[in-house]
Amino acid sequence: MSDEQRKVGVAVVGVGGAVATTAIAGIELLKIGACGYEGLPFADVTSLVPYTSLTFGGWDLDGDDLAKAAHLHGVLEPRVVEAAGAGLAAVAPWPAVADPEYCRNAVGANVIPISSVRGRVDHVRSDIERFRAAEGLDRVVVVNLASTERWPDLTLPALQTPEAFEAAIDADDPVISPSMVYAYAAITSDSPYVNFTPSASADIPALLELAHQRGVPVSGKDGKTGQTMMKTVLAPAFRSRSLHVDGWYSTNILGNRDGQILEDADSLSSKLQTKGTVLDQCLGYEVEDHVVRIDYYRPRGDQKEAWDNIDLTGFLGQRMQVKVDFLCRDSILAAPLVLELARLVDEAARRGEGGAQEQLGYFFKQPITRDGGEPEHALYRQEQVLRAWLDH
Amino acid sequence: MSDEQRKVGVAVVGVGGAVATTAIAGIELLKIGACGYEGLPFADVTSLVPYTSLTFGGWDLDGDDLAKAAHLHGVLEPRVVEAAGAGLAAVAPWPAVADPEYCRNAVGANVIPISSVRGRVDHVRSDIERFRAAEGLDRVVVVNLASTERWPDLTLPALQTPEAFEAAIDADDPVISPSMVYAYAAITSDSPYVNFTPSASADIPALLELAHQRGVPVSGKDGKTGQTMMKTVLAPAFRSRSLHVDGWYSTNILGNRDGQILEDADSLSSKLQTKGTVLDQCLGYEVEDHVVRIDYYRPRGDQKEAWDNIDLTGFLGQRMQVKVDFLCRDSILAAPLVLELARLVDEAARRGEGGAQEQLGYFFKQPITRDGGEPEHALYRQEQVLRAWLDH
Amino acid sequence: MSDEQRKVGVAVVGVGGAVATTAIAGIELLKIGACGYEGLPFADVTSLVPYTSLTFGGWDLDGDDLAKAAHLHGVLEPRVVEAAGAGLAAVAPWPAVADPEYCRNAVGANVIPISSVRGRVDHVRSDIERFRAAEGLDRVVVVNLASTERWPDLTLPALQTPEAFEAAIDADDPVISPSMVYAYAAITSDSPYVNFTPSASADIPALLELAHQRGVPVSGKDGKTGQTMMKTVLAPAFRSRSLHVDGWYSTNILGNRDGQILEDADSLSSKLQTKGTVLDQCLGYEVEDHVVRIDYYRPRGDQKEAWDNIDLTGFLGQRMQVKVDFLCRDSILAAPLVLELARLVDEAARRGEGGAQEQLGYFFKQPITRDGGEPEHALYRQEQVLRAWLDH
Amino acid sequence: MSDEQRKVGVAVVGVGGAVATTAIAGIELLKIGACGYEGLPFADVTSLVPYTSLTFGGWDLDGDDLAKAAHLHGVLEPRVVEAAGAGLAAVAPWPAVADPEYCRNAVGANVIPISSVRGRVDHVRSDIERFRAAEGLDRVVVVNLASTERWPDLTLPALQTPEAFEAAIDADDPVISPSMVYAYAAITSDSPYVNFTPSASADIPALLELAHQRGVPVSGKDGKTGQTMMKTVLAPAFRSRSLHVDGWYSTNILGNRDGQILEDADSLSSKLQTKGTVLDQCLGYEVEDHVVRIDYYRPRGDQKEAWDNIDLTGFLGQRMQVKVDFLCRDSILAAPLVLELARLVDEAARRGEGGAQEQLGYFFKQPITRDGGEPEHALYRQEQVLRAWLDH
Repeated sequence: MSDEQRKVGVAVVGVGGAVATTAIAGIELLKIGACGYEGLPFADVTSLVPYTSLTFGGWDLDGDDLAKAAHLHGVLEPRVVEAAGAGLAAVAPWPAVADPEYCRNAVGANVIPISSVRGRVDHVRSDIERFRAAEGLDRVVVVNLASTERWPDLTLPALQTPEAFEAAIDADDPVISPSMVYAYAAITSDSPYVNFTPSASADIPALLELAHQRGVPVSGKDGKTGQTMMKTVLAPAFRSRSLHVDGWYSTNILGNRDGQILEDADSLSSKLQTKGTVLDQCLGYEVEDHVVRIDYYRPRGDQKEAWDNIDLTGFLGQRMQVKVDFLCRDSILAAPLVLELARLVDEAARRGEGGAQEQLGYFFKQPITRDGGEPEHALYRQEQVLRAWLDH
Repeated sequence: MSDEQRKVGVAVVGVGGAVATTAIAGIELLKIGACGYEGLPFADVTSLVPYTSLTFGGWDLDGDDLAKAAHLHGVLEPRVVEAAGAGLAAVAPWPAVADPEYCRNAVGANVIPISSVRGRVDHVRSDIERFRAAEGLDRVVVVNLASTERWPDLTLPALQTPEAFEAAIDADDPVISPSMVYAYAAITSDSPYVNFTPSASADIPALLELAHQRGVPVSGKDGKTGQTMMKTVLAPAFRSRSLHVDGWYSTNILGNRDGQILEDADSLSSKLQTKGTVLDQCLGYEVEDHVVRIDYYRPRGDQKEAWDNIDLTGFLGQRMQVKVDFLCRDSILAAPLVLELARLVDEAARRGEGGAQEQLGYFFKQPITRDGGEPEHALYRQEQVLRAWLDH
Repeated sequence: MSDEQRKVGVAVVGVGGAVATTAIAGIELLKIGACGYEGLPFADVTSLVPYTSLTFGGWDLDGDDLAKAAHLHGVLEPRVVEAAGAGLAAVAPWPAVADPEYCRNAVGANVIPISSVRGRVDHVRSDIERFRAAEGLDRVVVVNLASTERWPDLTLPALQTPEAFEAAIDADDPVISPSMVYAYAAITSDSPYVNFTPSASADIPALLELAHQRGVPVSGKDGKTGQTMMKTVLAPAFRSRSLHVDGWYSTNILGNRDGQILEDADSLSSKLQTKGTVLDQCLGYEVEDHVVRIDYYRPRGDQKEAWDNIDLTGFLGQRMQVKVDFLCRDSILAAPLVLELARLVDEAARRGEGGAQEQLGYFFKQPITRDGGEPEHALYRQEQVLRAWLDH
Repeated sequence: MSDEQRKVGVAVVGVGGAVATTAIAGIELLKIGACGYEGLPFADVTSLVPYTSLTFGGWDLDGDDLAKAAHLHGVLEPRVVEAAGAGLAAVAPWPAVADPEYCRNAVGANVIPISSVRGRVDHVRSDIERFRAAEGLDRVVVVNLASTERWPDLTLPALQTPEAFEAAIDADDPVISPSMVYAYAAITSDSPYVNFTPSASADIPALLELAHQRGVPVSGKDGKTGQTMMKTVLAPAFRSRSLHVDGWYSTNILGNRDGQILEDADSLSSKLQTKGTVLDQCLGYEVEDHVVRIDYYRPRGDQKEAWDNIDLTGFLGQRMQVKVDFLCRDSILAAPLVLELARLVDEAARRGEGGAQEQLGYFFKQPITRDGGEPEHALYRQEQVLRAWLDH
């Protein structure tokens, strides 16, 4: 069967959010030729399923239709949302798993009305199957774009093996977060799973092992879009020139729902942890003065600003500074990466390559590795690995 | 003979300048353990001649001793210059080739008192030989750090073949610039030649061919230190993420002698030309709005500031901006690269690899290529090429 | 007659430009309550003619209707231009005075078909009178928003006295620029005249004297909107704290028609001259290293960016730096000032105060003074002078 | 007695700190003509006591001599500290009042060995008297430059009246902070008191009233040096142009002891409160999105960096941004203001003007007012008030 004829469904956790609606609107606009391929890194790769063969569905705590949601997010101008309107309106968010213990600031009424963890898992699995059947899909991939959750204690035994995890599900163990419910449901539905958020999900040992056993591709975590992406570009260059990084101060201001969620200290803590180790790995030594701030600042809406200051020492101990101000757009940077990830985990599944997809580190702040080892963070090396995999 | 015992002489054109005196001071401080290896990219490569085996000499229009010159440049604090004082004071600049037709703002009294081109060539060659003999050197490498010259008409027949060039020397043809005199003298003395300036020099067809015939390594041109270096780091990353560069505005303010020289429109024009094509090659398309400004601004002295603004288009045609402010130090960035180049062309000569050294593109804004083709500009690819050559 | 009933006509030179169309659209939107009073400094002053009593007309080399022009300028989003559409479409640009000797890059077909200077003057005067009669206006004020002209030799005798100027008109003396034609026509029509451009106009001695004799208010020149406005805010503060300004580097990037005009060196020179003295007057001493660059850079359109770097010396000779990046909008800053100026010169005329309006220095980069002396530039002092005049 | 002959002692709380040692070194260098008057706003006012008539003493938890302390702070280069060495070394810090309840991170061994509050007060008073007698001073002024303390509950009755405060002293009430001990001792010694820190001190009602009753000038609080100073320059300008401030994001990075102290949440909270209201008062409305961050970041040492981003709305609701990056030097900005304050409170005492010195608001982030009302914050208005007072 040719690529053109295959149909891949993308079931998004948080389908009514800014990133998801931007991604879906983008596909609609591509279909009608109303936009180009800017921001899509693998538009030139013909072996992947075409963008226009992607079909969307997904869960959201907010049951509003996606056209309305897209207007509210304000990422795209009204006329753009209108142009993509039919495609957006066609997606009705399915009821979602809610757990205020894991994400206080994410609330909504469109909730799966089941309290047992096993019941929630089965509900999510049936959503996936219904989606597959209704749309005549060759494959469903699940992408997590939900709000950042706090992390549970990741050392608990329940998260270490598939067996312990199954038992924890049946025991309604509170260690199991909504993100884990979705990941588990996806893996056991043989649906590739992508975690674009910082939440603990398919990257826990129990689920990595399960994905490996079942041969289901899993990928994550935390999309590398703005400031961290730049960090993994600049730090390798400073290392290349032997300019020593004495300190790196990063601040972010953003005014979208993501920013609001991060006003909760627990969510922020998950986020900051995924940002932490990147720099040291790129440089090969520990930067003692690496400070990262994220502040909710409403005037910007989705138009994030990331300001970095870097203190360098060069030849003869002389000091220099670099300041980078990135006036970026959170969802505009993230949405095309989500589309590429959907195509790439589909490709991995076609190749029969299950478990942690290390070659997709290019997309993530904290790439998961098969053995839990420290991943490569330098963007150009990640790209070379991925291109080599694609060329294979 | 072991590396430790080899002695390599570095004969610098413009030895009294800020970059040269910083490089020489650096070696002195390394010798006494008063500084580290920051800024030296290949400090880890043990196959190269050790830094402390480099011995310095060179030409300058200003005959002042180098300790005095270093104080004047103000790159290093007085106490640092004093610590390196003996080594600096030991270098007495040799009379230099002067030609106001090529560089109006570079003046001085320490001039070779010969008017014929052939006579000047012979004088420079005898300087090299005297240096070799006096210091007991295993090899002399010549490095051009002189002020930027205007470019002659590079299409003139005299610059196309070794034979035509020889004839032009004998005819005192004004097309032959001081930089060409040094390059020709170096090549015919079997001394590897590095052009760290934007001037037309060993990169003209006549001299490239001559270097190839004689098996002498030549390398250049225009050291890639600050803004352009950053450009060749960032542009490949934007390309990697398919972020389209709509425009790139670069301004530089600097207050050292380099800046003063560039107040002359002819010198500035040479400089801007070497900066021009970098971006388009890194991106794979032409950036129509690429503006580069260099302004002399005294308050900064050697502490250059490079401010870049980049306009990007991402997914769905949405606009973003990146601003980079690099508070750098011109000579501090350049000096260690000069030291590495001296070691690397020595290595090439040891390997018997003459002609254009393409693997050294990592160091230059406009790397010379054997066939005159467009060179690679992306810093990480240049580094990979060079590391592979070193590992060979 | 109450203010509410008075009608003031604003005849704009360059009525199809970005600033004029933005100002006119603004009045339309104020009339329908579709915008607030942001950017209008004297919205609280009830003694001035209300914004909504302003009626617009004017000259332009481009005869297109203003709704079309506003769409092309791209200052306002399409839906805003549409909301103001009726008012914009109602203004049909009158044929304008063209002289390529004075502004090479401003071209168009909507030209007064008269070659004698006196004939052009009479034509402009008849335009003003026709406007007054057709709209039933109590007063017409003329505002110059045309493209920057090169300066003639301002020391020529023809520009020194009203008599010499009259003779020059009759002799078709090429010293008389289009801006002078408009200014002379306005003054002799008893219409207050505002020069918002850097061109030499009513500020020449001949016209200042004529305005004084006839009791007609004249005001200018060169609207102080973005970077220079900030300079006149920051410099007085540095002076207040005795922080010595060692250098001030200013660069501007803009992509609108203004920017294109300034690609012509002659126009640029006029512009830079009006920017020059501001800083020294604010500080009380000469800043030797004051550099101002303006570059045409298309990706920005009307969204100008002004980047300033300031080098300061503080206590004990210690150095500091301030960098200011103003992502401003040229026409959005200028248009409301134009509206206020129209109201304020109308007020001056009502008070019977003719000649140079020194109290309006608040609006200009180079405020004209009665005696040709150095004006006050500090924004807060200018504001205090103007507020005192208003309270009088 | 002429000014030249008067001697004023400056007793500094925190005399070994970076600001104090910089101020003292400055006076030494002025005495020997080794520096100019940069940074000293009132160098032109001849009626004040000359800088060189100031004599220094003071308290510090660290008993080290000041030359050593100045070297450690690293504000001034070693050769500058050496030039001022004799004057610095002559100042031996007196034992200081310590209370870890108020400032956890400020520690040291040079402590007044008395536990009762009354005993500490008496000790401080005897220090003042001894200083006065030993140096033959006409007046002693006390300046608080100590580390920021947490605030007590400022609504407690003990802080409301002189009588209640006296009783609290005798009862060893923990509400009495070290800063209050110094302020009370100064006032009851008839020594003018300046609080350059954010700590609660002479600005509590009890001490304001006491100072008023005894006719002792008191002044404060929290020196306005870098970011807040700029805020009180820019905000009035935005107001002047009717540019609405939608949000103001301020971040500070600094690596000196001040920064370290502010890592303690309680001290930071005091600091942030003094920064808060400034903006709203300057603008005349509440900025809902005003965020201020202060982060300890070692690579900078005393070379603070303040980055501000301001979101503005202008004409027709169009959005603009201003970014200000102030690479300043904390102690270099503060020290000259401390010297001016010492001279100005001496002048107030000579004039017999006791109580809160409202005319000194120019120097402070949170100027104290006689009636507790909201003070003026706009820098230029503060300067005009102070200049008028000086001219009086």
